[in-house]
Amino acid sequence: MSAAYTELQDRFARMSAISGAQSMLSWDQATMMPAGGAPVRSRQLAVLSVLQHDILTAPETGGLLDRATAAAGELTSMQRANLNEMHRVRIHACAVPASLVEALSHASAKCEITWRSARADNDFAALSPKLTELVSLVRESAAARADALGVTPYEALVDLYDPGSRVAEIDRLFGELQAFLPDLVLRIMDKQASVTKPVLPTGPFPVKAQEQLARALMQRIGFDFTHGRLDTSHHPFSGGVPEDCRITTRYDTQDFTSSLMAVIHETGHALYERGLPLEWVDQPVGRARGMTVHESQSLLYEMQAARSKEFLGWLSAELRVSFEASGPQWDGTNITALYRNVAPSLIRVDADEVTYPLHIMLRYELERALIDGSMKVSDLPAAWNEGMRQRLGVTPGDDATGCLQDIHWPSGAFGYFPSYTLGALTAAQMFRSACIAEPDILTELARGRFGRLNIWLRDNVHRKASICSTPELIEQATGQILGTATFRAHLEQRYLLD
Amino acid sequence: MSAAYTELQDRFARMSAISGAQSMLSWDQATMMPAGGAPVRSRQLAVLSVLQHDILTAPETGGLLDRATAAAGELTSMQRANLNEMHRVRIHACAVPASLVEALSHASAKCEITWRSARADNDFAALSPKLTELVSLVRESAAARADALGVTPYEALVDLYDPGSRVAEIDRLFGELQAFLPDLVLRIMDKQASVTKPVLPTGPFPVKAQEQLARALMQRIGFDFTHGRLDTSHHPFSGGVPEDCRITTRYDTQDFTSSLMAVIHETGHALYERGLPLEWVDQPVGRARGMTVHESQSLLYEMQAARSKEFLGWLSAELRVSFEASGPQWDGTNITALYRNVAPSLIRVDADEVTYPLHIMLRYELERALIDGSMKVSDLPAAWNEGMRQRLGVTPGDDATGCLQDIHWPSGAFGYFPSYTLGALTAAQMFRSACIAEPDILTELARGRFGRLNIWLRDNVHRKASICSTPELIEQATGQILGTATFRAHLEQRYLLD
Repeated sequence: MSAAYTELQDRFARMSAISGAQSMLSWDQATMMPAGGAPVRSRQLAVLSVLQHDILTAPETGGLLDRATAAAGELTSMQRANLNEMHRVRIHACAVPASLVEALSHASAKCEITWRSARADNDFAALSPKLTELVSLVRESAAARADALGVTPYEALVDLYDPGSRVAEIDRLFGELQAFLPDLVLRIMDKQASVTKPVLPTGPFPVKAQEQLARALMQRIGFDFTHGRLDTSHHPFSGGVPEDCRITTRYDTQDFTSSLMAVIHETGHALYERGLPLEWVDQPVGRARGMTVHESQSLLYEMQAARSKEFLGWLSAELRVSFEASGPQWDGTNITALYRNVAPSLIRVDADEVTYPLHIMLRYELERALIDGSMKVSDLPAAWNEGMRQRLGVTPGDDATGCLQDIHWPSGAFGYFPSYTLGALTAAQMFRSACIAEPDILTELARGRFGRLNIWLRDNVHRKASICSTPELIEQATGQILGTATFRAHLEQRYLLD
Repeated sequence: MSAAYTELQDRFARMSAISGAQSMLSWDQATMMPAGGAPVRSRQLAVLSVLQHDILTAPETGGLLDRATAAAGELTSMQRANLNEMHRVRIHACAVPASLVEALSHASAKCEITWRSARADNDFAALSPKLTELVSLVRESAAARADALGVTPYEALVDLYDPGSRVAEIDRLFGELQAFLPDLVLRIMDKQASVTKPVLPTGPFPVKAQEQLARALMQRIGFDFTHGRLDTSHHPFSGGVPEDCRITTRYDTQDFTSSLMAVIHETGHALYERGLPLEWVDQPVGRARGMTVHESQSLLYEMQAARSKEFLGWLSAELRVSFEASGPQWDGTNITALYRNVAPSLIRVDADEVTYPLHIMLRYELERALIDGSMKVSDLPAAWNEGMRQRLGVTPGDDATGCLQDIHWPSGAFGYFPSYTLGALTAAQMFRSACIAEPDILTELARGRFGRLNIWLRDNVHRKASICSTPELIEQATGQILGTATFRAHLEQRYLLD
C-alpha cells in the first residue's frame, strides 16, 4: 500500500470526523437548539463545510490521488473502490469554489428559517426573495458541477444525492409509472369504495404510551440504543453517524398511526447506517451508497414489511396492549385497512404509497424547471397548484398545504426528490427478492420478528456500502436492473387482490 | 484598519465557530450521547482541536499578526486588546505540536471513560495506567508551554484556564486562607453545635416539580430560554456558546437542595456568557476572561446572593408552594440553616463554602506534585487520604469518595482547581462592592429579584470580557486587588454573627 494512499485515508478520515460533527450539530438544530442559537449554528455549519472543502480541494490532495492512482496495482479491490470514491467526491468539490460553498451554507440556513415562519403563516411572499436568492446560488453550483461531470446542471445536483443517477433513467422509470399509476389509483379507490371504510380508533393516545411502543418496536426491528437515540422533531428524520444514529418522530395524541410508521421508516434508515462495514466507516467507500438505496431501506421496512398483512395482524394485537384498548376498531382487519387506505391528498409525507410517486413527479418537473431557468420562484405557487390538479385531482387551498409544505427546496436540496420514488421501486424489488431467498420472512413478520429480513439486507445491501454503483447494487441484490414491474405487481397484489 | 487585522479577525471567527462546535459536541456527550457514540465523538473532538491548532499556528497567521501589530496605531483600543489576546493564544498553540494536541485529546477522552467505570467500581488500579499516560502527555505539554511563556510548567497549565495567574499569587492567597480557615471552621462548628440542627424536609420531591422550580428560578434570575437550555447530566455543568447556553443539573428525589443550588450556580456561569459583548462574540477579546472570573460569577449567585438570608427567606416560601408542603421544616429559619450547614466532608462538590477551599488546597498541592514529577500517579490514593486527614480531619473510606471523585484530572484538566477558590474570593469582593454601589440589591433578593445585581455585574464584569487582565478587572470592579479579607469577613458575618 502506497504512502500516498495511506495519507489519503488519513485525510478522508479527518473529513469524515468533520462531517460527522456537522451531522450531530444538524440533529441538535432540529431537536434541541433554542431559536436564538440559529445564527451561530449556521456559522458553525458553514465553517465546517468550508474546512472539508478546503481539505478535499487542496492541491496536495490532488497530488496524493494522482500518486495513489498510479500505484493502484498495490491496492486491494476495496482500497481501489475507495480511491474511486475519493476521486468522485473530489470532482464535485473542485467544481465549486469555497466562497460558493460558504454562501450556499448561509443562504440555505437563512432560507430554511424563513420558510418555517412562512409556512406557519401561509406567506409565500415572505419566502420568495430568499428562495430566489438561494435558487440562484444553487444554479451557479449546478452549472459548475455540470461542467466538471459532463452532465446537465440538474443532473449534477441529482448526482450529489444519488451518485451516477441520470435524468434519462429517471424519465424512463417515471414515464412507466405515469403510464399505469393514475389508472391504478382509480381502480383501487373504486375497490376501496365498495368495502367498509376503516375507522381510526379514537384517542387520546398519550405521548408516553406512543413513545414506549415506538421504542419497543425499534428494539424489535433491531435498533441498538447503545448506538442511537429516538427524539422528537417537527419532521421525522434520521441523522447522526453510523456509530450514533439519531432518529426522530413526532406524536399526535389523536392519531398514533403516522408517528409509528415514521419510527419504522427512520429505523430502516438507521439499520442501513449501522450495517455499513465498521472498518470502513470513516472512508468514502464505507458510506451509504446514496439516497435511492437509503430510501429503499426505510421504505422497505415501512411500506413493504410493516404494511404487510402479516405484520399488521401482529401489530394490531400489540396496539391493543399498548393503548389498553379493545373493540372492533382494533381488529387486524381494520388496522390493516387503516394503514392501506389510498386517496389523493395534498401532503406528500402523509400520502399513501400508491399516490406518493405522483407527488414526487410534480416536484421533479418543477425543480428541473427552476434549475434550468425556465420557471421563476415567483411562478411556483400557480405551477404547483395546477400540477396537483392535473396529477392528483386535488388543489391546495393555500400555499402552506401547497408549495410551502416541504423543507427540501428552502434548505437548498434540489435533485433530492426523485430518490424517494426510485427508493420505493428499489424497495419493492428488494423485498420480493428477500422473500424468495428467505421464505420465512413473512412468517417471522407475522410474529413481529425481523431477523431474517435484517440478515438478507445486511448481506445484500448494508455491507455493500459504496463498493459498487447503485444500479450494480440493485442488480446484484435482485437479479435485475431497476424497473417498475415489481412495484406495480406489489401495488396490484396489495390493493386489488389481497 | 489594516487588511492584516481584518484577515486575522476572519481567521479567529473561523476558530471560534470550530470551538463552538466542539462545545456543543461536548455538551451532547455529557447529556445525550449513547455510550456507543464515545469513540467516534472522541475522534470528532480531536480533529476539531487539531483544525483550530493548524489555523492558529500557521505561518501565515504569524505573518498577519506581525503586520497587524506593526500597524496597530490604526486600530481602536478594543481592536488592540483583541490583537493582544490573539498573540496570547497563539503563543500557547505554537508551543505544542499538533501531534501532541491530538494525542492529548484522545488520551483524555479515553481516560475519562475509564474513570467513569473506575469511580463506579471504586477501582483506582483500573484508572492508574491510563492516568499515568495522560499525566505524562500533560507534563510534555506543560514543559513546552513553560518554555514559551517563561514560567514553570505547572504555571503554564494554570495560565491555560486563567491567563496571567501565577503560583506566587495563588500561594499568597492560599497561605492567608490556610492561616485562618481551619480555626474558623472549628469556631463555626462550635457555634452550630450550640443551636438546633437544621432538618432536611422529607421527600420524595418529584423530578418534575424540581425541574419546574429550577426553570422558574432560572427565568427569575435572568436566564433567557430562547438562548439556552436546562438538561440533566451526571455532574452539573455550564456549556454551549454565548448565544446558546446549555446548563445542566441532576435531581435527587430525596433531597432537593443540591440540585437547586447547582442550577443557580450554572445560571451564574450562563449569565456571564450571555452578558459578553455580542459584537465581539467570535473574537478572543470577546471571550470570558478566565476561570477565576467565571467561577466568581457562578459563586456570586450561588453563595453570595442565593445563600443570603434575604433570598433564602423568599425561597423557603417558594419551596412550600412548589412542593405543596407545610410544616416547621419549611420555615425560613430552617431552610436558611440547612443551606448554611458547615462540616468537613469528603466530597468537594457537596462541601460548604467554608471548608471548600481546603478541598482545593489539597488538590492544588497534589497536582503540582504530579506535574513537577515529585509524585507518581500510583502514590495518589495514599497522599489524598493523608491530605484529607490533615486538612479536613476526615479520611475517605475508599477511593471513590477520595481521589476518584473529580472528573478534572482524568479529563486532562490540571491547573484548573485553583480557580474555584480564587473565584470564591473574587465573588465575595464583587458582591460586597455591588451591594455598596447598589444598596437595593439585598432588598430585591428578599423579593426574589436580581435586576440590580445583574446590571452591576453586566457593567462591571460581563461586558469587560477579555479587554483587561483578571487582576485589572477585579481591581476596577472592586477598587482593590484580590485578597482574602472580604471573603473572611463574609464568612465570619454569615456563620458567626448573622
